Amino acid sequence: MTAHAHEQDNFRSVAWCDGAVVLIDQTRLPHEEVWLTLRTPDAVAHAIRTMQVRGAPAIGVAGAGGVALAAHEWDAQDTRMLIMHIAMRAEELRATRPTAVNLGWAIDRMMRVTRAAAPNGPAALRAVLVAEVQAIADEDRAQSERIAAHGAPLLPTGGVLTHCNTGALVTAGGDGTALAVIHAAWQQGTAFHVYADETRPRLQGARLTMWDLARWGVPATLIVDGAAASLMRRGLIRAVIVGADRIAANGDTANKIGTYSAALAARAHGIPFYVAAPCSTIDRSVPDGDAIPIEERALEEVTEIGGVRIAPEGIAVANPAFDITPAACITAIITDAGILRPPYREVIQAVADREVVMMHATANELPTTDYWLLSRKKGA
Amino acid sequence: MTAHAHEQDNFRSVAWCDGAVVLIDQTRLPHEEVWLTLRTPDAVAHAIRTMQVRGAPAIGVAGAGGVALAAHEWDAQDTRMLIMHIAMRAEELRATRPTAVNLGWAIDRMMRVTRAAAPNGPAALRAVLVAEVQAIADEDRAQSERIAAHGAPLLPTGGVLTHCNTGALVTAGGDGTALAVIHAAWQQGTAFHVYADETRPRLQGARLTMWDLARWGVPATLIVDGAAASLMRRGLIRAVIVGADRIAANGDTANKIGTYSAALAARAHGIPFYVAAPCSTIDRSVPDGDAIPIEERALEEVTEIGGVRIAPEGIAVANPAFDITPAACITAIITDAGILRPPYREVIQAVADREVVMMHATANELPTTDYWLLSRKKGA
Repeated sequence: MTAHAHEQDNFRSVAWCDGAVVLIDQTRLPHEEVWLTLRTPDAVAHAIRTMQVRGAPAIGVAGAGGVALAAHEWDAQDTRMLIMHIAMRAEELRATRPTAVNLGWAIDRMMRVTRAAAPNGPAALRAVLVAEVQAIADEDRAQSERIAAHGAPLLPTGGVLTHCNTGALVTAGGDGTALAVIHAAWQQGTAFHVYADETRPRLQGARLTMWDLARWGVPATLIVDGAAASLMRRGLIRAVIVGADRIAANGDTANKIGTYSAALAARAHGIPFYVAAPCSTIDRSVPDGDAIPIEERALEEVTEIGGVRIAPEGIAVANPAFDITPAACITAIITDAGILRPPYREVIQAVADREVVMMHATANELPTTDYWLLSRKKGA
Repeated sequence: MTAHAHEQDNFRSVAWCDGAVVLIDQTRLPHEEVWLTLRTPDAVAHAIRTMQVRGAPAIGVAGAGGVALAAHEWDAQDTRMLIMHIAMRAEELRATRPTAVNLGWAIDRMMRVTRAAAPNGPAALRAVLVAEVQAIADEDRAQSERIAAHGAPLLPTGGVLTHCNTGALVTAGGDGTALAVIHAAWQQGTAFHVYADETRPRLQGARLTMWDLARWGVPATLIVDGAAASLMRRGLIRAVIVGADRIAANGDTANKIGTYSAALAARAHGIPFYVAAPCSTIDRSVPDGDAIPIEERALEEVTEIGGVRIAPEGIAVANPAFDITPAACITAIITDAGILRPPYREVIQAVADREVVMMHATANELPTTDYWLLSRKKGA
């Protein structure tokens, strides 16, 4: 990687730089751009837990970086002992956030590489892990670009609603997931106006999505989450596009709390509802949304904003960080491998079968959108 | 009125006391209980505009009080001149908030009384207007109690969702509208748990509803607005009950932004959705929801919380204060005159015809819930 993480023309929200994980502190945006240099797995775990780094693909890269740091924080010469240490740290990193599957996916991948490289000794192992973090980050960027290319033609003119933040911050390079689609469509000249849900309780829409869209010059209006349905009723919204933290084998999608509400409103108004995510967000080990663990976060996220208390003391709060949008509410899932349409279980299986090849393929050999639509038609 | 407005055992959020409108400053709750003594129509207009007093019935009483103050702020001996002054002030008060119909309703009523009392001279006119404010406030309390009595049997055991604040603050005495139903059902032993939407942007749910429910000892959990649909999907919510700012002739209901979203989610999950409001909230002069003016409020309500900036500078914001829930999403409208069920246009017409009688009737002569259900059955 030649560019520094914070060069604006090659923005990387999270990257491996000079033996450290370097990331932008998303909790300080949009008011301050603070870059953190993390040199231990503990520091990475803290950054993930406190959402200094957030967005499913980005926390995958950060977690992978944490595993690489585990290989470096201890000068062990005994490979077996080093691997045990790495494995222990990997599990600590995995436990930081339970819902987004990309974290577990990246950690599994780092551990596979760890075991494969073990015979070559600690020094080689460390080098291989660093290369793998960089590979994951590079793939992240490539995936973001392919998601954008696949999804852009789907966006209509008129209003487009998005929820939470899925922009340049959530991938290690590129323009993110759902916002990458929005940015690409805008660059291609599709005339629309983005409505951004503020996304309580953490306000990623107000703080981060409006920041992304302003940087890109895409016209956008901020609304409270509860206003989306009424804008649909007034005919102001023509499509909804969101990201995903985990997609089950049947297409049920875990995403930021409030997503399901927007999906129901879209369905009631006959508005297409798109999910944009890399294939690594698909977790075929969970059959449906009910099997996805939903993180419950601290009640202070709801009762305090910017340190200001907004509710009486001593009250009960439920603060699920995510919700499940059933596959039946999703018009299409836009992935780096193409656009998936119902029936999702069969199409996801087809993507997975292909994925074995993808791991050894270059970007140019990857299936295109048309391929997947074709194979679905063949199966129909 | 013998009780002071701020005696806890006879809580009156807004009242006429000793020649002034006395009200609790709702913007300071729950952290501080600050009572304001307003001696001019201007001060009342400011309180309504800044939402120091809010809730459709309460701003009706405050507005009526403002009209009475207009009759007192000028020592005119010429009745015609005094009426012109009152009328001018009345229109200023009417313009403070456009959506809730109770304000206009109360001001119209005060102006009718003004014209009727004119022949008796300024002193008598002033006395009659004070009596009318007190009458409106007393009716407010009686209406709240009847709404509670009619609605309480409808609430199921299990979870009940509410949006915004509809408790003791929104009526001049009594327990409010939708929250009055909840309180009455709870006192009757119905075992449920209230989920309160925080209600962005002004956070009336977090600040005020949780305060009401805590005072009453009703078990309650605060959630962000976007979480309601997912709680429904998880089977935690068995009914939704909200207030109303204006109900059109066909039953379409304007209420706090986010209400429609909750209504769509309830419908998708087969959960009953109730609106609770006094008959004065029904405006037969508007045929349907599209004809109800929707107030657009300042963007700072969305971009700042408690003075803390939460979004980038210079962005566009849409901040409609209300949305329209179509009649088709409403299971029943709980009024002081009884429970209205579809077809609303016909039932509302029947209520209106009866209302001519109600104005001269005592509370005991008012139609009961059964009456309205009966008349609907007859018509069917």
